[in-house]
Formats: sequence, structure tokens, C-alpha cells
Amino acid sequence: MVAISPLPHRAVVEHLVRQSVYQRLGKPLPRPAAAPNPLVVNVSARHCHLTQESVEVLFGKGHQLTVHKWLYQEGQFAAKETLTLIGPRSRVISNLRILGPCRSLNQVELAYTDGIALGFELPLRSSGNIKGTLGCMLMGPAGFFEMTEGVIRALRHVHMSPEDTAFYGVKGGDEMALKIGGPCALTLDKLLVRVDKSFKLEVHIDTDEGNACNLQADTPCELI
Amino acid sequence: MVAISPLPHRAVVEHLVRQSVYQRLGKPLPRPAAAPNPLVVNVSARHCHLTQESVEVLFGKGHQLTVHKWLYQEGQFAAKETLTLIGPRSRVISNLRILGPCRSLNQVELAYTDGIALGFELPLRSSGNIKGTLGCMLMGPAGFFEMTEGVIRALRHVHMSPEDTAFYGVKGGDEMALKIGGPCALTLDKLLVRVDKSFKLEVHIDTDEGNACNLQADTPCELI
Repeated sequence: MVAISPLPHRAVVEHLVRQSVYQRLGKPLPRPAAAPNPLVVNVSARHCHLTQESVEVLFGKGHQLTVHKWLYQEGQFAAKETLTLIGPRSRVISNLRILGPCRSLNQVELAYTDGIALGFELPLRSSGNIKGTLGCMLMGPAGFFEMTEGVIRALRHVHMSPEDTAFYGVKGGDEMALKIGGPCALTLDKLLVRVDKSFKLEVHIDTDEGNACNLQADTPCELI
Repeated sequence: MVAISPLPHRAVVEHLVRQSVYQRLGKPLPRPAAAPNPLVVNVSARHCHLTQESVEVLFGKGHQLTVHKWLYQEGQFAAKETLTLIGPRSRVISNLRILGPCRSLNQVELAYTDGIALGFELPLRSSGNIKGTLGCMLMGPAGFFEMTEGVIRALRHVHMSPEDTAFYGVKGGDEMALKIGGPCALTLDKLLVRVDKSFKLEVHIDTDEGNACNLQADTPCELI
């Protein structure tokens, strides 16, 4: 599998340019520019995570997920493979994107708008915390199976490295806020801090949150 | 037409109970309870406003809109009548609710999610300010016509009486913020203040904004 490295994210380029301009002018860096890493905010459209076993049930024995698009977090990708979800009231979501690589559990992450379309209220959970949630049927070209639990709305969260938590003075499990500018500005509270030394600084919000503020590539964002 | 008065809004009952409890305890009212009017926050689902002339084109000569449900603002109602919208890329939204009474212009108010479904970017406008916006086809059981402009995302706004603006220290055209609590709390900035002596204190947000914070009847809200 040959991985074509994507262009750097706009926020990364802006961060480098901002740092360089302030340095050339000999001026002190304002707080956002002084951060060790650029702040990237991405909207997660509905998607699912699957185990390798589930991938094989849906797409055939020995099937491996193939890369459609690399994501900002190292090694994570949107797969070419999509599937069909059948909810508990027999309503359907088609072309549900699978994110790779495979994980140790099956989980479907939807926005509330999707929950309304499916006809039930999604529980708000942090990723992986799926005990007691509703499940659904998943259908692929080679087969289908019942996922007994794991359909959630994912808590808005920020991925941070220890370098980032030190700069912002927070720790894993804390809550921050994300101030989003533009014509329909808003501030998202209760942004869960998730820490791993492999993480690149990135906020994940869902499509409802992204549409509420019409988040665009050039919308100013600040972590507070 | 017999208008059945709806039950009082939950926020109205809460406001009265809160004021009464503080008074009985002989304690000073906290700021939200001291407000002259209760704060009602409602989610506006996609809808349209029509002229009487348009209603007659769509539903037949002499047709009058009929009340499906009274809204919180005096005299405003969701009509039983709905229509079909055909967007500029021939995509369709069915069962678009009409709000009555008729107005002096035709206007369709959608959420960004609807704009994505229709395949074009909605301009963010205050109600009535539709110059230069895209239009659509509207189709009813008795006819159809082309609306040449007026498909917008309505700016989030708050209806206020002069009594309310005096309490909050704002004037028409100002921007306030709405803090919404609960598990997916957020603060909506750029909330346009609209004033009329007939207005009851009410914030209107759209379905994207309502779904972003999962606004429920008991979600705490504060105007700041």
C-alpha cells in the first residue's frame, strides 16, 4: 500500500506563517502563535469503526480495508469501503464510511440529525464507552451482522499530545471550550481532552456542530 | 376559525414558580428570575412565509391558510398546508411547512443541513433581507411558481419587547449571546436583537443549532 502524503492542513500553514512573521518583525508571539502546535478543527461526518472480524463478515474472508483518504491523525484513514446501516426502527443510512485501521470494537458515530432520521435518541458517549447503548444491523456486499450495541453520538473532543496539555495547562479527561468565529460564531463547551503521545492537536466536532457554525477552512478557532 | 389556546410554555411556568418561591422565602430574586419575562428558546424547523397571492397559486383561488399549531408569538401559527420545494439543482424538499399569517414577501428558511441536501450554500440573512439570494420552485396541490429569490438561513435572533430591551440593556440590531447548558453545552454568539412592542421574549435557533446542543424542553438557557 503506497501512502500518498496529503497537503499540509491550512491551519498548519497558517501557524508556521504566523510564527515566522512575528519572529521577523521581532515581536513577541501572541498566545495562539506561541502554542507548540497548530490548532486543527475538523468535522467528523458519520462513520463507523470495525474489528477485522466484522470487516471480513461484511466484505469477505481476508478482506483488508483500503485507503480512500488519509486523516490528520497519523495512520488513520477514511476507507474506500462503506456499508449500509439498518436502525432499530428499520430505517436505513446508506454509504456509511468506515474509518481504518480496524479496532478492537465495533462502533457507529452519528450526529443527532442522523438519530432523528433513524427515529431514536442517540446516547452522548466518549469513544469506546458503548456499554448499554443501542445497536443496529450492518450490511456489506458479502454479508451482514447485528451489532448488539455501539451506536452513539461521540462527545466533542480534542486530541492532544503531552506537549499540548502542558501548554494549555490541562490533563486527559478535562473539559475545554472551543471558540469558533465567523458570521454564525459560537463557543462549544464540554470539549473532552484526550491525550496520547502519538496525537496531533486536533478538535473533532460532528456535522451538527459544524453546520451550526458553518465551519469553513478559514473560520478562526481558539481553544480556551 | 376557533383558536384553542395552547398550554403555557414550560419556560413560562418555571419563571412564575421561580419568582414565587424566591418571594415566599423572602430572598432577593437572582437576575434571570428578576427579568420581566421568561426566556423561551425555540428551534425553528425549516419553513416558509408566503404572500396571500402565492398561497392562492399553490392551493387554489381564495384559499386561506388553516391553523395546525399556534406558535409562541401572538397570532403566528404553523399552517396545516405544506408544499414541495425544488431547488436550483432539481433536488427536492417535501412537506415544507408554511407559517402564517401571510406576509408581504415569499421567503424560505432552511438549515445548512438542508442546503447541503439541496446542493448549494445558503446565505445567512436576517428575515426579510433577501435581495440577491437564490430562489427555488414551489409546488402545491393547485399549482406552482418560481420564487426568484428568498432561500436563506435565518440569522439566529431574539424577539424582545421594549420592556425586555430595557432590562437587558440592548437595542434592536444589537447582538447578544445565548448560553445553553446540558451535556453538549454551547454558547451561540451573534444573536440578533429584534424589537417590537408586540413581541414576547423568545429566541429562535434553527435545527442545526438545536441539534448541536441537543436542546430539550428542560435544557437551561441564559441570555447574556
